[in-house]
Amino acid sequence: MSIPQVTQKLLAAKKEKGLSFADLEKILNHDEIWIAALFYLQATASEEEAKLLVEALGLDTSYIQELTAYPVKGLGPVVPTDPLIYRFYEIMQVYGLPLKDVIQEKFGDGIMSAIDFTLDVEKEEDPKGDRVKVIMSGKFLPYKKW
Amino acid sequence: MSIPQVTQKLLAAKKEKGLSFADLEKILNHDEIWIAALFYLQATASEEEAKLLVEALGLDTSYIQELTAYPVKGLGPVVPTDPLIYRFYEIMQVYGLPLKDVIQEKFGDGIMSAIDFTLDVEKEEDPKGDRVKVIMSGKFLPYKKW
Amino acid sequence: MSIPQVTQKLLAAKKEKGLSFADLEKILNHDEIWIAALFYLQATASEEEAKLLVEALGLDTSYIQELTAYPVKGLGPVVPTDPLIYRFYEIMQVYGLPLKDVIQEKFGDGIMSAIDFTLDVEKEEDPKGDRVKVIMSGKFLPYKKW
Amino acid sequence: MSIPQVTQKLLAAKKEKGLSFADLEKILNHDEIWIAALFYLQATASEEEAKLLVEALGLDTSYIQELTAYPVKGLGPVVPTDPLIYRFYEIMQVYGLPLKDVIQEKFGDGIMSAIDFTLDVEKEEDPKGDRVKVIMSGKFLPYKKW
Amino acid sequence: MSIPQVTQKLLAAKKEKGLSFADLEKILNHDEIWIAALFYLQATASEEEAKLLVEALGLDTSYIQELTAYPVKGLGPVVPTDPLIYRFYEIMQVYGLPLKDVIQEKFGDGIMSAIDFTLDVEKEEDPKGDRVKVIMSGKFLPYKKW
Amino acid sequence: MSIPQVTQKLLAAKKEKGLSFADLEKILNHDEIWIAALFYLQATASEEEAKLLVEALGLDTSYIQELTAYPVKGLGPVVPTDPLIYRFYEIMQVYGLPLKDVIQEKFGDGIMSAIDFTLDVEKEEDPKGDRVKVIMSGKFLPYKKW
Amino acid sequence: MSIPQVTQKLLAAKKEKGLSFADLEKILNHDEIWIAALFYLQATASEEEAKLLVEALGLDTSYIQELTAYPVKGLGPVVPTDPLIYRFYEIMQVYGLPLKDVIQEKFGDGIMSAIDFTLDVEKEEDPKGDRVKVIMSGKFLPYKKW
Amino acid sequence: MSIPQVTQKLLAAKKEKGLSFADLEKILNHDEIWIAALFYLQATASEEEAKLLVEALGLDTSYIQELTAYPVKGLGPVVPTDPLIYRFYEIMQVYGLPLKDVIQEKFGDGIMSAIDFTLDVEKEEDPKGDRVKVIMSGKFLPYKKW
Amino acid sequence: MSIPQVTQKLLAAKKEKGLSFADLEKILNHDEIWIAALFYLQATASEEEAKLLVEALGLDTSYIQELTAYPVKGLGPVVPTDPLIYRFYEIMQVYGLPLKDVIQEKFGDGIMSAIDFTLDVEKEEDPKGDRVKVIMSGKFLPYKKW
Amino acid sequence: MSIPQVTQKLLAAKKEKGLSFADLEKILNHDEIWIAALFYLQATASEEEAKLLVEALGLDTSYIQELTAYPVKGLGPVVPTDPLIYRFYEIMQVYGLPLKDVIQEKFGDGIMSAIDFTLDVEKEEDPKGDRVKVIMSGKFLPYKKW
Repeated sequence: MSIPQVTQKLLAAKKEKGLSFADLEKILNHDEIWIAALFYLQATASEEEAKLLVEALGLDTSYIQELTAYPVKGLGPVVPTDPLIYRFYEIMQVYGLPLKDVIQEKFGDGIMSAIDFTLDVEKEEDPKGDRVKVIMSGKFLPYKKW
Repeated sequence: MSIPQVTQKLLAAKKEKGLSFADLEKILNHDEIWIAALFYLQATASEEEAKLLVEALGLDTSYIQELTAYPVKGLGPVVPTDPLIYRFYEIMQVYGLPLKDVIQEKFGDGIMSAIDFTLDVEKEEDPKGDRVKVIMSGKFLPYKKW
Repeated sequence: MSIPQVTQKLLAAKKEKGLSFADLEKILNHDEIWIAALFYLQATASEEEAKLLVEALGLDTSYIQELTAYPVKGLGPVVPTDPLIYRFYEIMQVYGLPLKDVIQEKFGDGIMSAIDFTLDVEKEEDPKGDRVKVIMSGKFLPYKKW
Repeated sequence: MSIPQVTQKLLAAKKEKGLSFADLEKILNHDEIWIAALFYLQATASEEEAKLLVEALGLDTSYIQELTAYPVKGLGPVVPTDPLIYRFYEIMQVYGLPLKDVIQEKFGDGIMSAIDFTLDVEKEEDPKGDRVKVIMSGKFLPYKKW
Repeated sequence: MSIPQVTQKLLAAKKEKGLSFADLEKILNHDEIWIAALFYLQATASEEEAKLLVEALGLDTSYIQELTAYPVKGLGPVVPTDPLIYRFYEIMQVYGLPLKDVIQEKFGDGIMSAIDFTLDVEKEEDPKGDRVKVIMSGKFLPYKKW
Repeated sequence: MSIPQVTQKLLAAKKEKGLSFADLEKILNHDEIWIAALFYLQATASEEEAKLLVEALGLDTSYIQELTAYPVKGLGPVVPTDPLIYRFYEIMQVYGLPLKDVIQEKFGDGIMSAIDFTLDVEKEEDPKGDRVKVIMSGKFLPYKKW
Repeated sequence: MSIPQVTQKLLAAKKEKGLSFADLEKILNHDEIWIAALFYLQATASEEEAKLLVEALGLDTSYIQELTAYPVKGLGPVVPTDPLIYRFYEIMQVYGLPLKDVIQEKFGDGIMSAIDFTLDVEKEEDPKGDRVKVIMSGKFLPYKKW
Repeated sequence: MSIPQVTQKLLAAKKEKGLSFADLEKILNHDEIWIAALFYLQATASEEEAKLLVEALGLDTSYIQELTAYPVKGLGPVVPTDPLIYRFYEIMQVYGLPLKDVIQEKFGDGIMSAIDFTLDVEKEEDPKGDRVKVIMSGKFLPYKKW
Repeated sequence: MSIPQVTQKLLAAKKEKGLSFADLEKILNHDEIWIAALFYLQATASEEEAKLLVEALGLDTSYIQELTAYPVKGLGPVVPTDPLIYRFYEIMQVYGLPLKDVIQEKFGDGIMSAIDFTLDVEKEEDPKGDRVKVIMSGKFLPYKKW
Repeated sequence: MSIPQVTQKLLAAKKEKGLSFADLEKILNHDEIWIAALFYLQATASEEEAKLLVEALGLDTSYIQELTAYPVKGLGPVVPTDPLIYRFYEIMQVYGLPLKDVIQEKFGDGIMSAIDFTLDVEKEEDPKGDRVKVIMSGKFLPYKKW
């Protein structure tokens, strides 16, 4: 998981400005996860969005070009070693087939889109230890017969 | 992703009885995803839970032993080829690092547990096409310093 | 690429009946590729479609269950060794990035769906040697911003 | 999928000139996909073609040498992580064997050439959402017996 | 490299009859390598060829079906462990790029076909130790520009 | 397949001098494939051979050291993506076991050496399309019993 | 296992100062293993801890930023080649399943946390050869049912 | 991680007898982990030990042969998917290099033996949640110079 | 490392007869390692040798066919998990390049044959612990220039 | 197998001085293989040994630090492509299990240490072609029971 140089610069600028992704959410009017994805060049901004971000971070406009491009996605490696990210791999390994069965029982043959898709994270306060709540919402795409 | 024989038998019995995982949810008093995970031997039932399930499916009690065991988890392969399951792998590839940053900004250094963890699926009706909503909730585990 | 036993039985019955996939196209009113995908358990038939197919092949109705199920898709291995199939892997290796650029230039950030998708094969007669024409048509899915 | 430096320079020049691959199609008299493949050093231009391209992009002639060379092809990695490119890998995984059967039924034992081969992309306008049409045409090569 | 059961039966029958592949060359009027490839289901016989072979081996006609089919080719594994076969992998590792350069210098951009292709083995007697001569002949396929 | 910098310099010098590998064959008195292997640091020259080559290419003597060294051989990757080189991998996949059987039938238990080995390429003119002829000759090495 | 540059600088400073990890244990009031993990950017320090470390090593404060960040964890490769580290991989290969059975027999269905986790190394003097004692202590996390 | 049939039989017999590994510890006078390793054919018993175990489990003496043999060790797969076992893989990924540095600082150049090695598991009661304590003790082996 | 059934039968017969490989060395007049290799179908016996072995083991002559065949060699997997065998993989990882340099310094460009090759194991008694002595002797094969 | 820069510098100095590893053997009083391993940072020298080597090679003392460190061992890749080194991988593939059986028959359950280990190479003159003799001697380590 080699992090692109642009990402490193954006993260450093964000740190210097003392901004959280949640702060940027208000400025860009997009979810903090989508903005984090933009930082990692996994999403693409419009010209205006890129300008807003660059201004907020106090960077010059030379960053706009990369933020509005369509880069090759996927941050590798094949099996993630970072424990936080690995847990999502593990969830897919352990609950992938059960999930498939339940989704198909509810919707028929098809998939949850990872493109027409949103992803949110919330903090659930809990006396026994706070919980991370991850909400995915993807359009159901039924297999076309032809 | 070779499906265990027990799983195949349980799924066949469920089909014959005309039961959905949602129906079993009411009988077992557990979420349908957890029950599907039990079908795939990725979760472990108590004696009573196993009995309830076996009765509901019209199977003899010989299945109880496998349903109450602690089997080796993880359904492979390394990169899933099934399109529905692959999309969750893709989400981890594309949004893994952004997710990590947002979670750590909210919670500090640590991970979302995949053990003290629940997983739900809901159908969101939408005129532009129904959506699959997947909700994960895992306890935040901060890294211990020692 | 281990071929499921059902597939082998279906292919043997088809051979015995002297039917081509093109013949089945007329009976099932679906494209021959989709029907071949059904043979390999990579597509799912309705009850009526399954009955029609089973009758056409002179098989008993016990096959209907597998033809109407939602099996785990993907026929492996990671890199295909069969020369005919490998060429499609090679096309993805050599023309994948150029294709990405041209599609994104025409459509913006997004993908061609492999679910809302059709695939056809035609024979182009050519004095210098007949040509295989493969036509893919997938709905363009733009990345959602949220 | 590390993109060669020449490619990056060519793409930057193209962007600055405000040219699309479709525009270059008219100048070079070759398909936009072939031109995109040339950008990624997956195809080889003649001296004249390379000159035409270099002029159109406002670059000096030093680029001609790389555009007319025969570089090592294949842009890796083994399984693509970019969602747009992955879908073509998925199509090969899911429809590879069905495709093989239909092609061999129509043509006999052999393959579709990926060398004597053309690849086109078209935009199909559709009220339910535009579609990406990908047309491959490869010479059928029958296996030689000796 | 798991050897198909048909192959094992054909090899056993050949051994029992005391026939070499060179003997079969005279009966089938095809090269011994092509016949060995047929034994391993890597080539496809016509009805007549299959009958000739089956008779020569003293087997019943039930084998004809597999010998005339178009099976999935490639005998794996990814990197061969058998020392004789590995040497061909090593030749590709060590001499692959030099070979590419020399072929392209002689022929231009393109490949040697592995389909319109023949392969022969000869024994070169040599006082310092006999030599294995392997002769490959494949049609040169120039890359099409479109 | 990352090409060593020395190789790139040698190839550039060769191009500037307008020399083919066939031209170098006359100067060095070695086969063009062996010379190409030397360019890629897969073979080792004597001092005199290295000097001859360096002079022919108009390079200074600093290259002699690398040309006379014994570098780590093998140009990777595990499965080649370049179509020309892949075909040799495919030949090993498809014809590896048949080849093994024919060689062992002719020679007994052992291998074809890839060390006491020569490799030649010839152009076979053919009205239906020129052919690439690749001739390998390796000493047969019988397995020693001890 | 490419070692980050910061790590190399920290290790060099520690060597120059003649400090052992055991010495740093007293300064930082954390276990030497945790401190070594911090050196390798596998743990995260607080501002004060980072300052203490930087002072002890005689480095300027520019290192504090990296020591307090949350980097991507996991030092690769998939199977370690270093003999000392490989032995821990081997222990997991050989004793992984037995360990699983014993832990589950003692605790029920769940895992030992690698996050709420400590790791210590002690030297056990022994006349037959000193022994390395590695003590892991992780919170038991029972699988949640939902 | 395919579990040998003998293992499955031994585990079933143990379950039927209602014996824990801790119970067997008293009978065999060996640690429960070593006994579990014996169940998985990762350790080798003497004749007497095998007899004791077989008697305790109420099995016939035919199992003695496998329990006293030296089988191929290592239970695969390359990266474990079972969450409990994966955590040990993760510990090696995250703490492998720090561990190496601390061990070498204490002992010099060498390794902890995984052969002259013991492994224990204890339950640490803790009001905040019980802890799994894993204690490894391996002889330090210094690298020999010769 | 799945062990062939023939091997298992041969090993069982050897055990029943109470014969060591050293005993068989005297009967077959070949080294014990070569005989063990024959047991694992990694070497090929003559008719007489096979008869001698089969008699010594008290088996019927039906085993002669497999012992005199030329099977596919290599017992996998890619990286061995068995600790005894892994150490040889480790030696190749750690000492492979140093060995290459010393061999080439002594012999020039070439390899040690693994075909014209013998392998012996001896027990070196040593008060500090007996030692395993492994002696390999392979013909040096110089690279041919052509 | 990327060779460390220090190694390259040491090898270059050795070449300039016209020293063989055998020459260094006399100076350092260690085996030439161990010295070659030191060159590749796979072994660790004492301060005095490092000084002796550095003097002999005419290098300044700045190299002493790396020669006395404990670097991460293992020179990769997973399967070596260099023919000389591959042969040792092949020996492990072909003779690994036979070797295991013979060693265990002689010594019981355990392994040959690769740490308390020496490795020598000798040239055996032979009229039929000189032979490479490789002698490994490793302490036998019996599996501890606990």
